[in-house]
This record gives sequence, structure tokens and C-alpha cells, in this order.
Amino acid sequence: MSFVQIVVLAGGTGGARFLRGVRAANPEAEITAVVNTGDDVTLHGLRICPDLDTVMYTLGGGIDEERGWGRAAESWTVKEELAAYGADPDWFGLGDRDVATHLVRTRMLDAGYPLSAVTAALADRWQPGVTLLPMSDQRVETHVVVAEPGTGNQRAIHFQEWWVRHRAALDPRAFVQIGVDTARPAPGVVEAFAAADAVLLAPSNPVVSIGTILGVPGLRAALLASPARIVGVSPIVGGAVVRGMADRCLPALGIEVSAEGVGRHYGARSAGGLLDAWLVAPDDPATVPGVDVRQVPLLMSSPEATAALAGAALEAAGA
Amino acid sequence: MSFVQIVVLAGGTGGARFLRGVRAANPEAEITAVVNTGDDVTLHGLRICPDLDTVMYTLGGGIDEERGWGRAAESWTVKEELAAYGADPDWFGLGDRDVATHLVRTRMLDAGYPLSAVTAALADRWQPGVTLLPMSDQRVETHVVVAEPGTGNQRAIHFQEWWVRHRAALDPRAFVQIGVDTARPAPGVVEAFAAADAVLLAPSNPVVSIGTILGVPGLRAALLASPARIVGVSPIVGGAVVRGMADRCLPALGIEVSAEGVGRHYGARSAGGLLDAWLVAPDDPATVPGVDVRQVPLLMSSPEATAALAGAALEAAGA
Repeated sequence: MSFVQIVVLAGGTGGARFLRGVRAANPEAEITAVVNTGDDVTLHGLRICPDLDTVMYTLGGGIDEERGWGRAAESWTVKEELAAYGADPDWFGLGDRDVATHLVRTRMLDAGYPLSAVTAALADRWQPGVTLLPMSDQRVETHVVVAEPGTGNQRAIHFQEWWVRHRAALDPRAFVQIGVDTARPAPGVVEAFAAADAVLLAPSNPVVSIGTILGVPGLRAALLASPARIVGVSPIVGGAVVRGMADRCLPALGIEVSAEGVGRHYGARSAGGLLDAWLVAPDDPATVPGVDVRQVPLLMSSPEATAALAGAALEAAGA
Repeated sequence: MSFVQIVVLAGGTGGARFLRGVRAANPEAEITAVVNTGDDVTLHGLRICPDLDTVMYTLGGGIDEERGWGRAAESWTVKEELAAYGADPDWFGLGDRDVATHLVRTRMLDAGYPLSAVTAALADRWQPGVTLLPMSDQRVETHVVVAEPGTGNQRAIHFQEWWVRHRAALDPRAFVQIGVDTARPAPGVVEAFAAADAVLLAPSNPVVSIGTILGVPGLRAALLASPARIVGVSPIVGGAVVRGMADRCLPALGIEVSAEGVGRHYGARSAGGLLDAWLVAPDDPATVPGVDVRQVPLLMSSPEATAALAGAALEAAGA
């Protein structure tokens, strides 16, 4: 079948690749990506939106495919020079090509444009073939409550510091979304859910990507009000995280690191949860009461495999 | 003789090279550079101070010697990427290494630090061997009143647009310093004049560099109150400008493009002008009433020639 309007909730690399598959699986569809902005951060005065950029670069052909983030053929002069000035922080991967994106974004935000408008302006160059929406125009920044090694004192650090600087080595006690209380879904998000023929949860981090998106007040309710079926794709394959650090995040919320654990965390739409269907890998048999669990290959190891996965998700949405 | 404290008023490339000569001519001296900031501009959200950076890079060993501005071994990735986004303007030479300087500066300014403090922080990396002071912490931006080709309608454009974008091709009707009315000399400027044993006017543009510095309310009076002799160096050699566009600026103020013309424009200190002494090239005999005019080689064609010129200026200051 052919969907007219598809909405995908997505984080960074995994979400971006999944979106590429959705686009390939149904080139005729109007695809809207609702992207996590909880990873956003201001560094060196630049407003940086890692997930939006990863999706934009991936769908626009500018991504470094191997790294999975940032621009292909990237150089690092600005970063090295900032370090020569002793400018903090020096641990963030700020590429020269990437800097231009952040400069345009920061300038537009400083001029008063909302992030959704800035995102559209940037996407005008990249032509990603999908409508890119930030989850919210308001700033929501994920912080991680960690215990200092040694003292055990707790403090909250920005998600990027936890992930990029500390490589997720510090045990996360909790994830808090600073600013979420006053956030609203970005323009177009609620409308996209209302008009959707299929809503897909990309195999992104259930806590700090999908979970953060769903935490925007009003967004979850709008999602559940959608006439479309909601299909999730497990980020856990063969009992392990494919990429990223979901295995570091899930335990902090008491969620088992398994396809079944994540599926149960999302829960059945019919029982107050989210899912109509849940896609798990052939090696990950899962039972989620009230949810149509389907076993399909989940590894996005090639464009073809990714498109097949997206096709299976769309099929589950139309069942 | 050996001066303890030397103050140099300077613009960009010429001023920077002259300062290098002063440093070489008297390595023991405390040298203070009071630098023009009228060329400063905000582009792509970055606060750019071309003259301060040129002096800092030149004295700190980071300058592109051939170009005379910007960093050696510079790359232009950010600029190219900004152009790919269609971000205006695309005509400014914004190098990748340079961008880091502007990022640090912009971030500090946004955090509330005055330009003088920012300049000191940047110079901490470059160790220029002189104290770098902006002429003012307040924003003063030179605009050029030009007539539109065709219509003849007058409009004011930023100095950088006139100089870099239009290569000074548009006839300047006037130079106006936006913001100068509320500017004050930066901290340390008045004190430097008061403590100076010699004050030198670098062979910088008399209108948009030295003239702009002198236009800061209170600065000229502090200069004239200095116990030191004031020695100027002609930017006109052999009847022509050595570098830059003084020949495009002087006529707008009715000043003859000659060493004598500029000397008379500055005028004798004894008659309400600035100069105790005026250095002109051997080919540029000049009479400036009340001023000790000296003919010395002015071309800064080598470090040795530049140091010799600086030595002659210091000698004139001590006469």
C-alpha cells in the first residue's frame, strides 16, 4: 500500500538512517520527521542541534557515512584554533563545515526566528525530501544526573558532556529535561499527527531521543489522537544496542535492555501506552501484551535492508 | 636613547608592521598600541575587529605576511559553506582560523566583557610583546557616504562593504563614525598617553584609521596633554599611498594626497595640531609650519628597514 502522510519520531544517526529507508520505501509519501532537540547545546556561542543536523545531513547527502554524524570531508581547523585559545569546551566535535550551519542557525535564532523556521531555512539548502520539524521551538536540554567518582556527590551535566566528553562512562542516575515544562510541540507537529496515515517510532534511543520527544507537553496526547497506527522499531537487536548508549540509559529508568523490555516500556496503545505494533529482530522474540509484535530484520546494514525494514514498518502500520 | 614607554596609534597592516619595527628598535620599551576599531563589523553573528587582529597576528607571528591580513596557512571552509547556505554577505574574507578568534571574541562580548578585556584575553595566546588597546570599548563603526552609480542617490555603507566588497570603487563623499558621540577612550589609553616618553602615529590611513582614533571624544585631548613628543610617519611615499586606500579617502576631506598634505592636515602641535615631528620619504620634501620635518626612508620593505624607520621616529621623538 502507499501512504500519503507518514510521521516519524527520530533521534540522530539511527533515526536518520531509518528515515532514509522510509523515503526509499515510499518515495511518493509526504514524510514528516519530528526530531529530538534535547541534545541541543550552546557551545562557543553557537547553537548546535546534533539530531536535526544528523537527519538533515543524512537525508541531504552531506553526512559522514562512516562516523554517522557531521559532514563528509570535514576539517577541524576552528576546533583546533579554539583549543589554542584555551576556549572551553575542547571535547566537542565541531567541524569547520558544521560551524557554518551553526553560524546560520545562531544568527537566525538571535534575530528572533523560531527553531522550526531556522530548520526549514537550513533544509532549503539540503533538500532532505522530508519535512524536518524540531519537536519544539522552546529550548529543552537533557541533563544527566551523575554521581562524582570518589565522593558520590550528585550533579547534573548536559547530555553532550555526559555522552561526548565522558563517553557515557559516568553512571546515569536520572535524565532530566531542563525547560520541558514550558515547551510546546513545534508548529506542524500536532497537525502532522492528525493528518498521518502512519506514525513510526524510529529505532532511536527510547529514553533520550524518543522519550524526550514524547515528554514535550501535549505531544504524546496529539500522537495518541492520531488516526494512524503507531509502529515502533526496536533499537535493541540481539539483546544489545546497535549504536549509541541506550544500554546506559534504559537501566536508569528500570527498563530491561531487550527488545521486549523497550516494547513493554512503550506499552500497548490499547492500554494507555503508545504502540499498535512493535518490530523486533528475528533473534529477539518478544511478548508485549496488546501489541502486534513482528519479527523482521532490523539491521540497517545497507540502503536495501533499511528500505525493507521501513517497508515492514509501514506494512505493520497498514495492517 | 632608550624609551621606557612608547605609545603608537595604529590601523591595520601598515600600523602592525610599524609596530613590529618599534618593538625591534627598542626591545626594552613598554609599547602600547592604541588601535583603530572603526573598521569593526558584525558578520554572520561574529564580531570582527580587523585592525586589532591584524596587529595581534602580525606581532604574534600568526599573520599571512604576503596578504597582510588574516592567518597564515588559512583555509576557507566556513566561508564556502556559508555561501552554500546563501548567507549574506559572501564577500568578506572570513578564514577558518580567523573564525575561532571571532568566536572567542563574540562569546566574551556577549558575556559582558568589554572589548579591551577581550583583546587582552586573545592577546594572551599571541603574546604580541606590546599592550594592545582598542581605541574604545564602545562600538564605533565607520560608514562611507557614497553616491549610487546611475541615480546619484547617496547612502551610507559600512566601511568594510565599501572597501572589501566594492574595492573602494564608489566615490566617498564623507566618512562618518557611527556611535562615536558616546564613545570614550578604552581603559589604559589616557593613562598611556600620560606616561608616554614618545607618541608615534603609524603610517596608517590618516582618515579612517588615525582620524577615527582621534575622533573618540577625549582621546585627542589626552594625546595632546602627553608630556611626550608626537611624531607622525607619512603613509604617502613618493606621492602615492604605499598600501590601502588613503588616496581614496584624503580627497573626501579636501586633503592633498602627499606627505606634505597629510602633514599639514595633522598640523603642528604648537598651532593646535598634533605633530612635533613628521617623517617623510626622501622623495617627498615637505614643509609643515611649526613641525620638525625629517626625510628618512619610509618603505617597510624588510624587518631591518622597518626597525630603522621606527628608530628614526623614536629619535625624532627624543630630539
